Amino acid sequence: MRTTLLAATLALLVANPLQAAQPTRIDAKALTQAASLRDAVLRDATAWQVTESLTTEVGPRLAGSEADARAVEWAKAKFKALGYDKVWTEPVTFPKWVRRGEAAQVLGTHAQPLRVAALGGSAGGTVEAEVVRFADLAALEAAPDGSLAGKIAFVDYQMQRRRDGGDYRNGGGIRGRGPSLAIRKGAAGFLMRSAGTDTSRAPHTGNTRYEPGLTPIPAAALSTIDAAQLARLVALGPTRVRLALDCGWDGEYTSQNVIGEITGSKRPQEVVLIGGHLDSWDYGTGAIDDAAGIGITMAVGALLKPMRPARTIRVVAFANEEQGLWGGRAYADRHAADVANHVIAAESDFGAGRIYGFDASARDLQPAALAQIQQVLAPLGIEWMPGKGDPESDIGPMTQRGMAWAWLGHDGSGYFDLHHNAEDTLDKIAPKDLAQNAAAYAVFTWLAAQADGGFGSAPGTDG
Amino acid sequence: MRTTLLAATLALLVANPLQAAQPTRIDAKALTQAASLRDAVLRDATAWQVTESLTTEVGPRLAGSEADARAVEWAKAKFKALGYDKVWTEPVTFPKWVRRGEAAQVLGTHAQPLRVAALGGSAGGTVEAEVVRFADLAALEAAPDGSLAGKIAFVDYQMQRRRDGGDYRNGGGIRGRGPSLAIRKGAAGFLMRSAGTDTSRAPHTGNTRYEPGLTPIPAAALSTIDAAQLARLVALGPTRVRLALDCGWDGEYTSQNVIGEITGSKRPQEVVLIGGHLDSWDYGTGAIDDAAGIGITMAVGALLKPMRPARTIRVVAFANEEQGLWGGRAYADRHAADVANHVIAAESDFGAGRIYGFDASARDLQPAALAQIQQVLAPLGIEWMPGKGDPESDIGPMTQRGMAWAWLGHDGSGYFDLHHNAEDTLDKIAPKDLAQNAAAYAVFTWLAAQADGGFGSAPGTDG
Repeated sequence: MRTTLLAATLALLVANPLQAAQPTRIDAKALTQAASLRDAVLRDATAWQVTESLTTEVGPRLAGSEADARAVEWAKAKFKALGYDKVWTEPVTFPKWVRRGEAAQVLGTHAQPLRVAALGGSAGGTVEAEVVRFADLAALEAAPDGSLAGKIAFVDYQMQRRRDGGDYRNGGGIRGRGPSLAIRKGAAGFLMRSAGTDTSRAPHTGNTRYEPGLTPIPAAALSTIDAAQLARLVALGPTRVRLALDCGWDGEYTSQNVIGEITGSKRPQEVVLIGGHLDSWDYGTGAIDDAAGIGITMAVGALLKPMRPARTIRVVAFANEEQGLWGGRAYADRHAADVANHVIAAESDFGAGRIYGFDASARDLQPAALAQIQQVLAPLGIEWMPGKGDPESDIGPMTQRGMAWAWLGHDGSGYFDLHHNAEDTLDKIAPKDLAQNAAAYAVFTWLAAQADGGFGSAPGTDG
Repeated sequence: MRTTLLAATLALLVANPLQAAQPTRIDAKALTQAASLRDAVLRDATAWQVTESLTTEVGPRLAGSEADARAVEWAKAKFKALGYDKVWTEPVTFPKWVRRGEAAQVLGTHAQPLRVAALGGSAGGTVEAEVVRFADLAALEAAPDGSLAGKIAFVDYQMQRRRDGGDYRNGGGIRGRGPSLAIRKGAAGFLMRSAGTDTSRAPHTGNTRYEPGLTPIPAAALSTIDAAQLARLVALGPTRVRLALDCGWDGEYTSQNVIGEITGSKRPQEVVLIGGHLDSWDYGTGAIDDAAGIGITMAVGALLKPMRPARTIRVVAFANEEQGLWGGRAYADRHAADVANHVIAAESDFGAGRIYGFDASARDLQPAALAQIQQVLAPLGIEWMPGKGDPESDIGPMTQRGMAWAWLGHDGSGYFDLHHNAEDTLDKIAPKDLAQNAAAYAVFTWLAAQADGGFGSAPGTDG
């Protein structure tokens, strides 16, 4: 029986490794320290100071631009100034896209300028053509192939405001897939209502990518107000627009992931990874996207240092997230053999709204330890929301290789008012909310570093 | 005795003509009609439709631009479509100022773009210089003459939000007088925090004027956010900025005041004048400044026509208010001999916020008639506010020649968020508030047209 039972148990383990894990425990002392830490970080200004410094001193930092290199130097110096034990960089190479100029005008009897942003990765070029409006991507998809020959396709979908930002699936989807779809229908140019929830004249940029084999066309986003104006004009009668984009690819560029570590006092080879991305789009100063993430996570490492965490705290300022997770993919490639030592990771790349939810990939594997962490997060107004989270941006490629992840979900109700547009600036961050964010990340990071046991990181699984 | 008394009375009349006026009366029928009119206009969409039409079909309409001529044609056609009895134009000639381009950048280790608007009337040119920040105009005034040699003066005053917009005295004052003051101190360039109450990246333009004898320098307004950024950078250390303005004077232009009349049924030669200005600055579509004023007053004339007003209702769409009341001054020059027939006038040029106050130049002369009008306005939430009002913009030159005026004061709490910047667009107007505005102007205009007696218009007095 025993042998048979053991065999059966082993079979179960293979079938469902989650049930086999040793329960990870967090001791009472670590929990007490986490509660004190939480309350102290709520009163601490480090995250704000780092965020202010990056947005003010570097400003906008488009990947591959002159400011990209200054941002890297800034991050190295800031890690050092914050007392990190180790600071280093790892190269990230990507094709460089440049925006030199962009303009759009309604032509003819209702002549007037329209505010547009070339989509990242857009081809340059000038198109003068009649605009054909579609209410959403499905409507464009339903247009017969070739029916837009010589026209400008205009997808006028109004993204909806949600706490979890979930309608970005639609807004961002139009940005990503719209241009290729328009090309297949024969269009000479592509316009979309910005993937944003604001009512402003600031258009939202963001990456697009043409499907292989298609000839790229100029693709841009109108501000939400300009989109509404163009829709009114199209309703009055045939409307011609001139879209002139001066942008495109310009060779390769090598930036850097900038990494700072607080060396673990007991298990230095085991890493709790947190971070954000260092690059931003070029219109704003990338305050909520993602200086806040850099500020929060850089502050957390610095604030944990005097507490001598058992595991190593690794803070990564990722390069070029915006144009395709280049930093996150380079990190995953470089550290592929070290997945098991990445005990757990959490990115902050969804602004600086108050954190309201907590989730982790180990929700079924280590419910007890996660419940302990949740207990310390709860006074910050954070709920346990199993199945609601996901690994944010840059840590995605590493989680695909098996790294465990946690999610601390920011309230994104206002995030898409500012995302990728000129209004993403320091003044939009509430210092108290940012401190709450830092407190949550500090609690999570501290408890993950002190936990006795892991959270399921294992190469080859999908964390 | 009688002779003596008469002589004494005549002497009094000369000394204080106000006391001598016959009391103006409004009959019960007119008051009843006004109350019905008020309630009907609250449900009427004409003002909105006119405002939407102008902002959509013409768009931005900088005085002297191609769109100025289209706006004139639009206004003539709209008056006709609305059934006005007479429509005509009167020429307005002014120097033409053009904006071709503008850019500003922080130079050096914190290099980054700054969003600026050349001030209307600014000289073009490029300056690269260190920035000297002043908290307000008084601080710049206190700088020793010549102390800013080769520098860019930066006046960083934050305009305060007020219902009556009263702090525009400071914000607008900096725009008007700052550049000349900076020149006197030796400055090579002038920057100011926009005269606005918003927090946005949209800089506010608006007119400036150099004092005679000074050599103009490039003068621009930073968005309020860019001003805060520049202030942070200046606090970190010496900060050099490149300010490049491509703008300036380009000959003369002749636009038109466009006038529509509903001919009076009993006293056609006596005119009640209402209006707004047709031009706008070039960034937005001039919705609150001043398509709303055009929409409100054009609608009022159209709505009063079937009621057959006793006096003539004259609606004026003034040319080029923004660059120096050119249309208002041309009107006053042309109609100088006809002041007495302009029974009373009211402009709408302070947006589309709810009207909260009523005042008139005849407050001491005709208190009874004004009280009658106030009684019908009161249900709209409008208070009698003697001494709080003034003639708005374009009717000023005519009131200086003795025309009586009324003031229907819009809530301006949000006005300077949008004033002269790219965000002055149709979406900022609440249709219900605009209908309230139109109802107030309709009540006033109807009762002024039906009143038995005048409101003190007399050539040579200051209305």
